[in-house]
Amino acid sequence: MREIVYVLGGGQTRFGELWESSLLGLIREAVDQATLNTGILPTDIDAVVIGNMLGGEAAEQAHLGTLVSGLLPHHPPALRVEAACASGGLAIHTACAFLESGKAETVLVIGAEKLTDIPGDNVTGALMHAADAEKDAPSGLTFAGVFALTALSYMHTYAITRDDLSLVSFSSHRAAVSNPFAQFRREIPVETISKSPLIADPLRLLDCSPISDGAAAVILSTRRESPVRIAASQLASESLSLIDRPGITSFGSTRTAMSHALAEAGWDRNSIDCIELHDCFSVATLIHLEDLGYCEEGEAIRLFKQHDTESSGSLPVNVSGGLKACGHPIGATGVKQILDCYKQLTKQAPNQVKGATRALAHNLGGVGATCTIHLLEV
Amino acid sequence: MREIVYVLGGGQTRFGELWESSLLGLIREAVDQATLNTGILPTDIDAVVIGNMLGGEAAEQAHLGTLVSGLLPHHPPALRVEAACASGGLAIHTACAFLESGKAETVLVIGAEKLTDIPGDNVTGALMHAADAEKDAPSGLTFAGVFALTALSYMHTYAITRDDLSLVSFSSHRAAVSNPFAQFRREIPVETISKSPLIADPLRLLDCSPISDGAAAVILSTRRESPVRIAASQLASESLSLIDRPGITSFGSTRTAMSHALAEAGWDRNSIDCIELHDCFSVATLIHLEDLGYCEEGEAIRLFKQHDTESSGSLPVNVSGGLKACGHPIGATGVKQILDCYKQLTKQAPNQVKGATRALAHNLGGVGATCTIHLLEV
Repeated sequence: MREIVYVLGGGQTRFGELWESSLLGLIREAVDQATLNTGILPTDIDAVVIGNMLGGEAAEQAHLGTLVSGLLPHHPPALRVEAACASGGLAIHTACAFLESGKAETVLVIGAEKLTDIPGDNVTGALMHAADAEKDAPSGLTFAGVFALTALSYMHTYAITRDDLSLVSFSSHRAAVSNPFAQFRREIPVETISKSPLIADPLRLLDCSPISDGAAAVILSTRRESPVRIAASQLASESLSLIDRPGITSFGSTRTAMSHALAEAGWDRNSIDCIELHDCFSVATLIHLEDLGYCEEGEAIRLFKQHDTESSGSLPVNVSGGLKACGHPIGATGVKQILDCYKQLTKQAPNQVKGATRALAHNLGGVGATCTIHLLEV
Repeated sequence: MREIVYVLGGGQTRFGELWESSLLGLIREAVDQATLNTGILPTDIDAVVIGNMLGGEAAEQAHLGTLVSGLLPHHPPALRVEAACASGGLAIHTACAFLESGKAETVLVIGAEKLTDIPGDNVTGALMHAADAEKDAPSGLTFAGVFALTALSYMHTYAITRDDLSLVSFSSHRAAVSNPFAQFRREIPVETISKSPLIADPLRLLDCSPISDGAAAVILSTRRESPVRIAASQLASESLSLIDRPGITSFGSTRTAMSHALAEAGWDRNSIDCIELHDCFSVATLIHLEDLGYCEEGEAIRLFKQHDTESSGSLPVNVSGGLKACGHPIGATGVKQILDCYKQLTKQAPNQVKGATRALAHNLGGVGATCTIHLLEV
């Protein structure tokens, strides 16, 4: 980082099926919470970056940067960025670039998505725009379908059982009980998860993150200080199409982003106290932990069996509830992850990891075609 | 600019109704031309920024950053940005931020749009996502309708005639005759323009930039030098909704971006030798010249009557043919403008302005809600 980028804090809406609110309404609520919680005057914000994927398709609203800028009295420069489900992490990364370039000193970063105003099938179809339209989409696969193929391959290769997968969702749902912003706040037994309706074999309903509405906002600054700063901000890509990859049980973009992030921060991965991970599907969590280098391929389930991933464990993962239980309003997720890391590092998290001083946020776009990794520290 | 950002050159597809090509095909052609024309090795590119508005709605393809990254052997980090019709200028601005931040040293910037694969009415509807979905779109206005209101108000206020408006389109069409990349390459008499089919009174077909496919790419670098450099890169916003504005015959975002750009470069506006302007509709050109400070409100038509805007005039405007005659593949336009400025400054333009050393590119999003201005010099 060419400049020290401080995380001043932020705010979010509850994630869920928020019928009573529009996309703009969600954004306004998150921005109001962010300015309230940080005490930043709106006029101190000199740029706005918003991460959003389906504003046009699902809410008939593109041009979101300028829409958000209009919520501030002085209409600062504003832009929208998109990298499918990594749009939120990309917004944070882009805001860092604007701060490091000197183009801005205090940036409002928003992630937002309003998906429930159109039929679920249309959302599923529009989400497939994140995949390669010429090579992958024509096969008729949905994202659940792609991750089902991944899960089958993973289970076959590493002898993982159906109940093993359920342990991942079980962990997220239990964590979310204490999170007031989570879409689902009750414990769900492993057996219920394993017997939930089949979506795309072997994935069941409770393996899948839900379709959600929501918005999150954080304020980053090089001028105003905060105990929390960004130690690394990395963005990485790999082939959009699955057919151009060596395999589907590991995502190269996570590996690239993680090695670059650790190098940028000068950290050892084992010094990180808590991780917010892109658990769009249960099997993805296992793959991510391996790609992040916390265990060998096929070994991640052991971390769940040993309770290492709980808030009191040796490697707390998604103690917010993750995408699975908090909900996954596409563009909002990556920004909400930064907010959850901030809460951990300032000891305001509902499911607090004791003594946490270093946190990692991992946001994924498509089937691992884009990855952002942010490292935060106090 | 915290760093000197050089424009190494670029390439583009022809703009037009390109039935034989997909969105990816257009992008590939522009990228190939850009690497060929600049002699840059693809592996020297360390980031990709693409400006696109309707990839999802019109080509079923979002996540375009990573799609483009996959055209390069080493898959550099990549992102898509969007600010409606200013997406291309925004991509250049964002690339500057990445270069100035030190996150990248050589950035491939692309603008691309593929619109003709869906019915024109659907394109018109999707383009209205650039306007305020809660305040403006519900009235049923199209963009041609909004600019028709603007034209009516402008003509009424400043006593401009129907034939006056036609002079603007006449000028663009005549300029495009020599541009091999332009969608329309023939002169069109003023009378023909004035009698072309009515679209939204008083705007006629030949007042309106067309629905086009196309892609353009430029390569910017802080590491590799070039005679052409970016002297200023500015992004500005004003209220997305028309009902929140003091009037509709001037766009505040242009005024803000221009004053900031001149201050950043330390230039006098009269030192600029040629201007690529966002002439989405004939009346817009007149408004822009006034907002850029080249004449008083209501006076711009005089520049056309005096032939000042021709390539041999005192203020050459859209000597490429502009959006009107070159075509307007939304996200591509702002990048193509930079390429046209580069050609002028390196004496490669088909309609060369003699001795041009300073150029301006003005790209607009929505009804003037976003504006980017880039100043280039040799």
